[in-house]
Amino acid sequence: MTTGNKTLVARESAPLSAKEMELMHAWWRAANYLSVGQVYLLDNPLLREPLSPEHVKPRLLGHWGTTPGLNFIYVHLNRVIKKRGESVLFIAGPGHGAPGVVANTWLEGTYSELYPEVSQDEAGMCRLFRQFSFPGGIPSHAAPDTPGSIHEGGELGYSLSHAFGAVFDNPDVIAACVVGDGEAETGPLATSWHGNKFLNPASDGAVLPILHLNGYKIANPTVLARISPAELEALFKGYGYRPILVEGDEPSDMHQKMAAALDDAFAAISEIQRRAREGGEVTRPIWPMVVLRSPKGWTGPKTVDGKKAEGFWRSHQVPFTMEKPEHLGLLNDWLRSYRADELFDAQGHLRAEIAALAPSGERRMSANPHANGGTLMRPLRLPDFRDYAVPVARPGGSDAETTRVAGAFLRDVMQANAQWRNFRVFGPDETASNRLQDLFDATDRTWDAETFSYDDHLSPEGRVMEILSEHTCQGWLEGYLLTGRHGFFSCYEAFIHIVDSMFNQHAKWLKASREIAWRRPIASLNYLLTSHVWRQDHNGFSHQDPGFVDHVVNKKADIVRVYFPPDANTLLYVTDHCLRSWNRVNVIVAGKQRQPQWLDMDQAVKHCTAGIGVWEWASNDRGGDPDAVMACCGDVPTLEMLAAVDLLRSHLPKLKIRVVNVVDLMTLQPKSEHPHGLSDTDFDELFTKDRPVIFAYHGYPWLIHRLAYKRTNHENMHVRGYKEEGTTTTPFDMAVRNDIDRFHLAMDVIDRVPSLGSTAAYVKQALRDRLIEHKQYIVEHGADMPGVGDWRWPDAPRTM
Amino acid sequence: MTTGNKTLVARESAPLSAKEMELMHAWWRAANYLSVGQVYLLDNPLLREPLSPEHVKPRLLGHWGTTPGLNFIYVHLNRVIKKRGESVLFIAGPGHGAPGVVANTWLEGTYSELYPEVSQDEAGMCRLFRQFSFPGGIPSHAAPDTPGSIHEGGELGYSLSHAFGAVFDNPDVIAACVVGDGEAETGPLATSWHGNKFLNPASDGAVLPILHLNGYKIANPTVLARISPAELEALFKGYGYRPILVEGDEPSDMHQKMAAALDDAFAAISEIQRRAREGGEVTRPIWPMVVLRSPKGWTGPKTVDGKKAEGFWRSHQVPFTMEKPEHLGLLNDWLRSYRADELFDAQGHLRAEIAALAPSGERRMSANPHANGGTLMRPLRLPDFRDYAVPVARPGGSDAETTRVAGAFLRDVMQANAQWRNFRVFGPDETASNRLQDLFDATDRTWDAETFSYDDHLSPEGRVMEILSEHTCQGWLEGYLLTGRHGFFSCYEAFIHIVDSMFNQHAKWLKASREIAWRRPIASLNYLLTSHVWRQDHNGFSHQDPGFVDHVVNKKADIVRVYFPPDANTLLYVTDHCLRSWNRVNVIVAGKQRQPQWLDMDQAVKHCTAGIGVWEWASNDRGGDPDAVMACCGDVPTLEMLAAVDLLRSHLPKLKIRVVNVVDLMTLQPKSEHPHGLSDTDFDELFTKDRPVIFAYHGYPWLIHRLAYKRTNHENMHVRGYKEEGTTTTPFDMAVRNDIDRFHLAMDVIDRVPSLGSTAAYVKQALRDRLIEHKQYIVEHGADMPGVGDWRWPDAPRTM
Repeated sequence: MTTGNKTLVARESAPLSAKEMELMHAWWRAANYLSVGQVYLLDNPLLREPLSPEHVKPRLLGHWGTTPGLNFIYVHLNRVIKKRGESVLFIAGPGHGAPGVVANTWLEGTYSELYPEVSQDEAGMCRLFRQFSFPGGIPSHAAPDTPGSIHEGGELGYSLSHAFGAVFDNPDVIAACVVGDGEAETGPLATSWHGNKFLNPASDGAVLPILHLNGYKIANPTVLARISPAELEALFKGYGYRPILVEGDEPSDMHQKMAAALDDAFAAISEIQRRAREGGEVTRPIWPMVVLRSPKGWTGPKTVDGKKAEGFWRSHQVPFTMEKPEHLGLLNDWLRSYRADELFDAQGHLRAEIAALAPSGERRMSANPHANGGTLMRPLRLPDFRDYAVPVARPGGSDAETTRVAGAFLRDVMQANAQWRNFRVFGPDETASNRLQDLFDATDRTWDAETFSYDDHLSPEGRVMEILSEHTCQGWLEGYLLTGRHGFFSCYEAFIHIVDSMFNQHAKWLKASREIAWRRPIASLNYLLTSHVWRQDHNGFSHQDPGFVDHVVNKKADIVRVYFPPDANTLLYVTDHCLRSWNRVNVIVAGKQRQPQWLDMDQAVKHCTAGIGVWEWASNDRGGDPDAVMACCGDVPTLEMLAAVDLLRSHLPKLKIRVVNVVDLMTLQPKSEHPHGLSDTDFDELFTKDRPVIFAYHGYPWLIHRLAYKRTNHENMHVRGYKEEGTTTTPFDMAVRNDIDRFHLAMDVIDRVPSLGSTAAYVKQALRDRLIEHKQYIVEHGADMPGVGDWRWPDAPRTM
Repeated sequence: MTTGNKTLVARESAPLSAKEMELMHAWWRAANYLSVGQVYLLDNPLLREPLSPEHVKPRLLGHWGTTPGLNFIYVHLNRVIKKRGESVLFIAGPGHGAPGVVANTWLEGTYSELYPEVSQDEAGMCRLFRQFSFPGGIPSHAAPDTPGSIHEGGELGYSLSHAFGAVFDNPDVIAACVVGDGEAETGPLATSWHGNKFLNPASDGAVLPILHLNGYKIANPTVLARISPAELEALFKGYGYRPILVEGDEPSDMHQKMAAALDDAFAAISEIQRRAREGGEVTRPIWPMVVLRSPKGWTGPKTVDGKKAEGFWRSHQVPFTMEKPEHLGLLNDWLRSYRADELFDAQGHLRAEIAALAPSGERRMSANPHANGGTLMRPLRLPDFRDYAVPVARPGGSDAETTRVAGAFLRDVMQANAQWRNFRVFGPDETASNRLQDLFDATDRTWDAETFSYDDHLSPEGRVMEILSEHTCQGWLEGYLLTGRHGFFSCYEAFIHIVDSMFNQHAKWLKASREIAWRRPIASLNYLLTSHVWRQDHNGFSHQDPGFVDHVVNKKADIVRVYFPPDANTLLYVTDHCLRSWNRVNVIVAGKQRQPQWLDMDQAVKHCTAGIGVWEWASNDRGGDPDAVMACCGDVPTLEMLAAVDLLRSHLPKLKIRVVNVVDLMTLQPKSEHPHGLSDTDFDELFTKDRPVIFAYHGYPWLIHRLAYKRTNHENMHVRGYKEEGTTTTPFDMAVRNDIDRFHLAMDVIDRVPSLGSTAAYVKQALRDRLIEHKQYIVEHGADMPGVGDWRWPDAPRTM
């Protein structure tokens, strides 16, 4: 019925012998058969009985179109792996082709090793079919339950950056990455081809991109399938590759072409690596890639209800449903065209000579240990973060650029793990801007494009990865982590939203992975968000957005952590903690500008261990009941809150204030909702049951309400934060515009403590006057009034 | 001191005469001078006095590196505009080069026309300098206050998609789009080159991309500056362009080359358009583009403190600060190298013969009316949405695919405005999947790449724009709206997160625009999010994320609106409403699957006008006090809630229930925080002051708490929603996994109404049993139990 399943004709002077091709074709038929079976069949897996409607699933779900191409690529990769003994990772960009990926892992035996109930026989095949996209079964994509997968492929765009991430520092690994079904049109994918400018052929592995031009996405042609061959070739030459074209639909011809293409590509990779490793040629080589032009839905029905199906977008998902009775015959013909009885024996075992095509053990792509990176993960060797402590003789007694201190720690983390080559730092061209430049004492920026004599810390050996693409940084880091290594991503706070959706997918991957026994934990994905909303006053409104945290906390509590260290020593603690953690996403928000330091290292350790606590040196409630709680979370809110405390304690010495600082945002949530959540008793202890709480928060204020709305004293919480009033102005004016400056905060307290009497009204007026004075000064001088930025916590507490 | 400011030598047989070049060079020097002045000077704008420290700004902010390149491009574009009379939009990808953009608009006179206090004389120049990046002044980027700008350029990546969006259906406009400072490395930019496959040379305008390869981004070389010339050329040929290279640093040479390049490019554009418009050749042409290789920080200091500055990344921002006293001399030399006294007369007017280089009136890029699209916006002609009503004889009495009904309306909107060519529909290959396929009765998919005979609704004339890049869809739509047209973006709900950051920037643009008197309102950006979390059960976890709404509501209340129409007639109302609105971002969330319809058109209009209301036909509290309020927001929550009401009213007929449905999410917020917010009285009226409220919400449940936490009865609100429990399963099982199914909701009510007595316990047990029975059925049969998906609201209310 279809082109794909015809008897093969071997050709002379071709890489495959007739026998080899016959067997490979048989494997392909088997994988295709199993793919169609997963989509359609509930029972009668080997069609030993005539196909009847009750053998067909009630809900037909899955994507056929890309699948035969994936299966074709898979069997051809297996041939090369066996021949050359390579360690290959299979990354299916169109992860919705999971029926194919799963089929191959089952044929290789891995699937049954991990899921014994899905055995390699008829009963197991029946389970394999039934479970696919079935309640209680497996998802429709190459999700974490899929052996050998590090890439779900549900959201298109990230396959190639994952592939590069997987091979950095893995010199023996080749990531074969299929880009298809329109993924090449996405922005993240379109730029990720440039990964070759960051790949060191000596110490990294290789990526073999396979552009699978099957012509269509969901309901449209793909752009790259509809440009001229000359343009297509030029595009990939421009990206720095040597494209090897495999085009056609006649299987025997295609098998020979594909075998030749992969022989060529793997030989080229090997030669590039040899020259680099033996000859020291690490300047960027021209890597090979494969362009596979084959029909969408290859070997599927040519037409359905008179409309073109094979080689068209109509075969993208399930090519036909069972609503029309005649479709049962169509399905029967389609399934039988693979002649499963020639492929599987009476028990449903794959025939031995076909099974022998699979590589063995860990050389099976489905069993490659790099795809279960946790098994290879070596914990980082971390220097003692206490050694980097900023001396703080008394609170506010010294200054530091907070992130710069972390940079020194990261430099030594880099150094301490250099021999294992398992740690990299990522960022969109902002590492130095974010004050992590000490890293460059330990390593360079990764760079394998052209260099000039005056370039600054660029080399193929570099371990700081900078490309002006948050997507690529994130994708590389994910690939690096998923294969068992460690990383750290620093980014302007506002622009981390660029990877909101990638974060989503990684968090979902982690959540699903936790439920799969054989998946070992991987290192956490660590973000340092800096150049943040309160200190992007120079770049203005477009650079001011603290909402990533809001986005992050929508994900499962056991996956996400959010930290707001108020100074350098707390940042050191938090950084160390995050680098030791696993299977999480940690978000750290900290400024890079010079600012007062509050806690010495012992205090920082104690404070961060609890995640939240009273700052007694700033409080004057002596453990009794305060008149007001002044809470802060984030470095700038902490600074402004302490300045407000200073104002209030100077002018209203009888006012009893308790200062609470929050490092670990999740402590605010109920314990029932987050493992770090405070118990209600502890929360009430800190925030009281009935006193006014003025809360200065780094981001959008309603997040605090959302986290704390179930708490006893929530009614009395008054939160200040960023309310989307930004522009290019001074740092203090940014605070004023959002009512989170010291004067507003102090007035907020006065407004909510009724017992203060007439002095309070007088003080409030004085505060208001000073606020106006400051605002006028700013507009007149273009800078903050002296005494604002350089305000310091007084030497001796003013009153007790 | 620098290469850029030397006396020029004109060459023979070059496009520019000596005089012409001298004048253009003078303009360039003037623009560069004004750029440096904006960054550095507070006073003494024409250096009539010796430069002293008090003339220099206290905070030095801005980006110099890209600016001289932008100025160079600007004066050369002006020459071509004058010569050819073209209407050109200037899009500065590196919008942080605003000192240059602003300088040119001031030289052209537009700036002073719009801001008379910034006059074209010495006093005005002083204001121009002072206001830049100054509190109360103007932002550091090409923000909405910049005349002629439609692109802020703060977040890199979107310039080229904005440019394409701006010229669709604007046959007489050429968008000159500068891509620089590493923007080409971003994913969104990397794919946006493919806009040429969607551009109709007959009925659209043209984009002239100018890749400004000045070599560096913030602290690194750019990738495209460090690949071979052959690769660079191949890349852009691969993208379908003819790159014209302009390379060097010697000004007289560069002026001639740039003039020749632009003459070539504009002539080519003109010839392409002529062939298309006169000769009917609309197949994709090879458009020209310019690659400008010039030094970063061109004409700036060659070195600072002995380190390379010009032609290196150190000139990206402010090349030097004033911390070292000797830098004053450096600044003085730099400023004086432009010889401002030759450019401006005693009053500070630009010399007339230089000023004469600017085009006049609306041909000035700074005054191009398309860049203030609101002035050109023609409201859409909308058919009466009531004509598309689904007949609903009684609630739940008929079924429809909700979005499909909207598709018929959109089809006729398309038709009704066809003659004005001012409406397009955008989507990442999902228009048909989202059931808007009726649109294809009125138009095709836009496509100007290769086509085959069997293609389906592809043509250069098409007005449905599908590319598998949410970034590109969003960028095109923004560009289209900003130039005064209308659009509609349909997207899978989960993947709209891909453009979170683009939404941010557009919302910020709208907010800032509202404060600028001369910016006229533009049409709203309308999203239809469908294939949503509750009906992506087939694609599974990666396709399930309702969090975009959470992201959206962080933005300013006067900009954002969020609608959850529960059925087709309400969706019609909301769609019509959104298409009539301006200066907003509207988010509509609605399902595409067949479902019961609740309201006839009259009811829908009444309900949507209020945005929230009691559904009396489902309630049995007869206007009295209910025992419980059952609230719902979103189509699936509404269905499940009504099924729960049905269960409760059947089994506990004495229970008094009030059903509240929310269409306009913002009604939940206090009126003080959102213009659509209900007053507290109205809120209390609906939700009572003390009765339990069970609230079924489409998305993450805590959003409802965040919106309603200030309301009287908030303590009694119990919200069910998506709690990140997703997978590939049945639709009903998705609800069950998140406790938002009818059985959980009914049990929630029973748990919270203490007066129900022992019958309630019995009913609750029965509900629990049925839930278990359903779950078992699902796992066994792979489908929902009959009676679930086809549950219908009973013909006659069961009890009253």
